[in-house]
Amino acid sequence: MDIEQFRRAGYQAIDRICDYYISLRDRPVSSQVEPGYLRKALPASAPPEAEDFQLIADDYQKYIIPGLTHWQHPSFFAYFPTACTFEGILGELYASSVPNPGFNWSASPACTELEAVVMDWTAQILGLDKSFYNTTEVGGGVIQTTASDSALIATVAARSRYIREHPHVAMEKLVLYTTTQTHSLGKKAGLVLGLKVRALEVTAEDDFALRGETLEVALKEDVDAGLHPFILVATIGTTSSGAVDRLGEIADVAKHYPFLWLHVDAAWAGVALVCPEYREACQLPAINAYADSFCTNFHKWGLINFDASCLWVRHRKHLTDALDVTPEFLRSKHGDAGTVIDYRNWHLGLGRRFRSLKFWFVLRSRGVNGFQRYITDCTKLNAKFAERIRESDQFCFAAKPFLALTVFRLGPKSLPHLTTLELNALNRAFYARLAARSDIAITQTDLNGVFCVRMAIGAEKTVEKDVDRALDVIGQEGRATLREWERMWGL
Amino acid sequence: MDIEQFRRAGYQAIDRICDYYISLRDRPVSSQVEPGYLRKALPASAPPEAEDFQLIADDYQKYIIPGLTHWQHPSFFAYFPTACTFEGILGELYASSVPNPGFNWSASPACTELEAVVMDWTAQILGLDKSFYNTTEVGGGVIQTTASDSALIATVAARSRYIREHPHVAMEKLVLYTTTQTHSLGKKAGLVLGLKVRALEVTAEDDFALRGETLEVALKEDVDAGLHPFILVATIGTTSSGAVDRLGEIADVAKHYPFLWLHVDAAWAGVALVCPEYREACQLPAINAYADSFCTNFHKWGLINFDASCLWVRHRKHLTDALDVTPEFLRSKHGDAGTVIDYRNWHLGLGRRFRSLKFWFVLRSRGVNGFQRYITDCTKLNAKFAERIRESDQFCFAAKPFLALTVFRLGPKSLPHLTTLELNALNRAFYARLAARSDIAITQTDLNGVFCVRMAIGAEKTVEKDVDRALDVIGQEGRATLREWERMWGL
Ligand SMILES: Cc1ncc(COP(=O)(O)O)c(C=O)c1O
Ligand SMILES: Cc1ncc(COP(=O)(O)O)c(C=O)c1O
Repeated sequence: MDIEQFRRAGYQAIDRICDYYISLRDRPVSSQVEPGYLRKALPASAPPEAEDFQLIADDYQKYIIPGLTHWQHPSFFAYFPTACTFEGILGELYASSVPNPGFNWSASPACTELEAVVMDWTAQILGLDKSFYNTTEVGGGVIQTTASDSALIATVAARSRYIREHPHVAMEKLVLYTTTQTHSLGKKAGLVLGLKVRALEVTAEDDFALRGETLEVALKEDVDAGLHPFILVATIGTTSSGAVDRLGEIADVAKHYPFLWLHVDAAWAGVALVCPEYREACQLPAINAYADSFCTNFHKWGLINFDASCLWVRHRKHLTDALDVTPEFLRSKHGDAGTVIDYRNWHLGLGRRFRSLKFWFVLRSRGVNGFQRYITDCTKLNAKFAERIRESDQFCFAAKPFLALTVFRLGPKSLPHLTTLELNALNRAFYARLAARSDIAITQTDLNGVFCVRMAIGAEKTVEKDVDRALDVIGQEGRATLREWERMWGL
Repeated sequence: MDIEQFRRAGYQAIDRICDYYISLRDRPVSSQVEPGYLRKALPASAPPEAEDFQLIADDYQKYIIPGLTHWQHPSFFAYFPTACTFEGILGELYASSVPNPGFNWSASPACTELEAVVMDWTAQILGLDKSFYNTTEVGGGVIQTTASDSALIATVAARSRYIREHPHVAMEKLVLYTTTQTHSLGKKAGLVLGLKVRALEVTAEDDFALRGETLEVALKEDVDAGLHPFILVATIGTTSSGAVDRLGEIADVAKHYPFLWLHVDAAWAGVALVCPEYREACQLPAINAYADSFCTNFHKWGLINFDASCLWVRHRKHLTDALDVTPEFLRSKHGDAGTVIDYRNWHLGLGRRFRSLKFWFVLRSRGVNGFQRYITDCTKLNAKFAERIRESDQFCFAAKPFLALTVFRLGPKSLPHLTTLELNALNRAFYARLAARSDIAITQTDLNGVFCVRMAIGAEKTVEKDVDRALDVIGQEGRATLREWERMWGL
C-alpha cells in the first residue's frame, strides 16, 4: 500500500467510523451471531497473493461489524462501560503511526515524558495526594493495560518488599487478602504468582463493604497459624454492587502490620474523584492517607479508549526493586544516571504502546469541566433510574445505588412470601428475558447468594430517553416474568 | 467533538501521517531532545476548559514529533525493528473505534473468533505443526502484548503443571533455565514470580547457542541438590547475536525430565519461518517436535504494528488450568458450554484489545508472497552488509551473521596485537561516535565480555542505498576512531 492508497483508505475508514456512530442507535446492542460464524465465513488460510484493500475494508463491514457487541451503544448497560471517544480514537491513530516499544526513555523520549506528565495531570484532577506525582521522583504513576495488571504489579511489588524484609519466609506462607466481592483480579494475581488468597466475608447489612474488624480477626488467625499477610486489595466501587471498603477502619488495623501493602482498586469508580462532590463517598482522604498503590481505569468510565488503566504508587522504588532487569543492550546514558523514568521497570512486560497520547488528547479536548460534566450526567441518569426502581411495586434494590450503578431485582409487593430460592428462580427467569433481547445489554450478578441484575450507565451517547426506554423494557419483562410465574404456580 | 469535527480531524490526521512518512527519510533518526524537555513545555495541569482540537493536533506536531525516535526511519538499525505498516495503522484505527474489553466470547464475538482464525493462519504460514492450531481445540494460539508476557505466561503454566504433579514441592525449589544470552524476559519472569533462574553458559565457539550437554550437567547438578527444574526458555535468534539454541540436543536431554516445559522464544527470528528456506536454520522441525510453547513477535520483524506477540501452546488446558477464574458476572452460555474460547484465561490480565484485526488486514493486503518478499529483502540487504564487513580490513564479526542481523566490531588488521580490554575500549569509543550521530540508529551489545555493535535491518522503507550509507557512516566513524586511538597512543 503506497501513501496515496493509504490516504484513500484512511479517509474511507474515518467516513465509515462516522457512519457507524450515526447508525449506532439503530443497531442491535448485542451481536446475534452463533459461535463459529466467522470461521465458517473466512478461508482456512491466509491468501497467497495480495488482496485489494477495498475488498478487505468491505469484509470488515460484512463480517466483523455484525459480530460485535456494541459497547458504545446508548442502550449498553452491561458490565461497566468501555470508553470510546473521538479524541481517544485520534490519539490511537496518531500513536499507531509511530510505533515503538517504549521500554525506556531513549526508545522514544516523548512517550515516556508525556506519560509522566499526563499521569500527574490525572492524579491532580482526581485529587490524589502529591506523593503520588511523578514530579516527586519518589512516587509516581504509570499506564497499565488493565486493572488486573495493576493489581498483579502491586502484588509483585508487595511480595518483593515483604521478602526483602523477611528473607526466610516461604512463599507458601504469604497471604493476599481480598473480600468475596473483590474483582477476580485478586484471585488471578494469586493464581499467577502461586500465592494464597483469602477472601474475607462481607455482608449485605454492611453494603458489601469490608470492615476493619473482619480484617483484624483474619489477620490474627493467619498470623497465629504461622502465615504472613503481605497485601490487601481493597475496592472502591466493587464490580457487583459498587461497594466501598472501609479504608479508615482497614488502616487502623493495618497499622499494626507495617509490611501489609494496601492496594486500592477503584477500576470503575475512581474516575468519579474528578468531581469534588464524590470524593468523600469514594474515601479520597483515606486513599491519600493510607494507600500504597491506587488504580483506576480511564478506559472504563473515563472517556479514554481501552487500554488505559492508571496505577499510582507511593514509592516507585518498590516497583523497580521488584522488576528491574537491565541488560547491556538496554543501558542508556540517561537511564543509568537515573535522570529519566524507564517505565519498563514499572510493569510486567517489556515493550509498551504510546498510550499517554490519548490521555493528552481527551483531557485537553474535554477540559476538566467537560470531564466532570460527563461523570455527573451519568450519575444523574442513574439517580433517575434508581428513583424509578425505588418507587416501583415490582422491583427492589439488591444494594445501595452508587454513582452510575444500580443493582436490583424483582421483588414484587404482590408476592411478599417468596423465599430467597424462589426469588432467585424468579429473577433468573427475568434476567433470561432481558438477556434474550438485542435492544438492550444488561448483566446479572450474585450478591451473597442473591441473584440480581446490574444496570451500569456510562456509554457516552446514552441520554435520558435511553434510560427511559431501558426502564420500559425492564418493566415489561418484569411484568411478563411475573405473569408467567403466576401462571406456572396457578396464582 | 461531534461527528463532523471528528471527520475533519480524522482526515487531517491521515494527511499528517502521510506527510510524516513522506518526510521521514529527511528527519534525524533519533530524537535530539534532553530529558525533561516536554515537562518544561507543557502546563503543569490539565486545562479546566475544553481546548480546540486543532490546537491539540498542532501541539502534537510541535512537541511530540521532535521527541520521537523514528523506529520506521530507513536508517534505523538499532535493537530489532518495531513494525509499522499502513495496513497495520488502519487495523488499529478500525479497532479503536469499537473498543471492548474482549475478555470472553460474548464480550464481542468477532474479536475472539477473528483472533482464533488469524492465529491459525499465522501458524500455518510459519509451518507450525497442526497441534498448535486453534481448530484442534487442544492446542492453540493467542495474541499477547510482548514476548515477555508470552514467556511469563508459559512459565506460569509450566509452574502450575509442575506443582499439580508435585504438590509438595516448595516454590523456592523450582528452577527456570535460560542461557546467558536469553533476553531479560527470562530473568524478569523469575523476578515477577519469585522463582530461581539459572542462566546456562554458552560460548563464542558454539555461536552462543545452548548445547544439550550444558543443560544435562546443570539439570543433574540441580536435581542432586534437591531442586526441581520445571521450564527451559530456549531462543531462536537471541537479541545480542541471533544465536539459535540447539533444540534437538536439548530435547534429547529434556526427555528424561517429563515435566520440564520447553518454551521457545523466537521473538525476532520466528517470523522468518514464513520462508521455507530459513526453516532448517530456525529449527522448525525441532520446534514442531518438542516445544510446549512457541512465541514470535509480528510487531518486530513481521509487518504488524506493535503490539502483536503471538504465543502458541500445544495444550491450551495448561493455560486455562493455571489461569481460569470465572466469577458469576462473567459466566455466559457459550463459555460454560466450552463451545467458545474465553481468551481471558489465556493471559495475565483480563481485558484485551482487538488486535487480530490488524493481522487480518496485513496478511490479506500483503499476501503470503508479499510477506515472504519483505523477509527475504531484509536478509538480502543484511547479506550485503555482512559481506562488506567480512571484506573489510577494519571490522570483524563478533558472531555469525544471521537473517537480518550482523554483530561486528572494530578489529583492525593494522593493530593485530590488541588485547580484549583494549579492543573493548576501542569499540566503546567507536560506538560512542555512532551513538552521537542523529542520522543513523544502531545499538551496542556485549558478548561474553566482548563489546560489539549490532546492525539489525527491518524498517520497511529501508532499501539498498540506506544500507550503503550506513556502511559509509560506519566506515568513516571506524577510521576516525582508529586515527584518534593512534594519536592517543602515539602510534
Ligand atoms: C472493581 C473492578 N476492578 C477490576 C476490574 C477489572 O478490570 P480490568 O479488565 O481492567 O482488569 C473491574 C472490571 O469490571 C472492576 O469492576
Ligand atoms: C529474542 C528476544 N526475545 C524477546 C524480546 C523482548 O520482546 P518484548 O519486548 O516483546 O517482550 C526481544 C526483544 O528484542 C528479543 O530480541
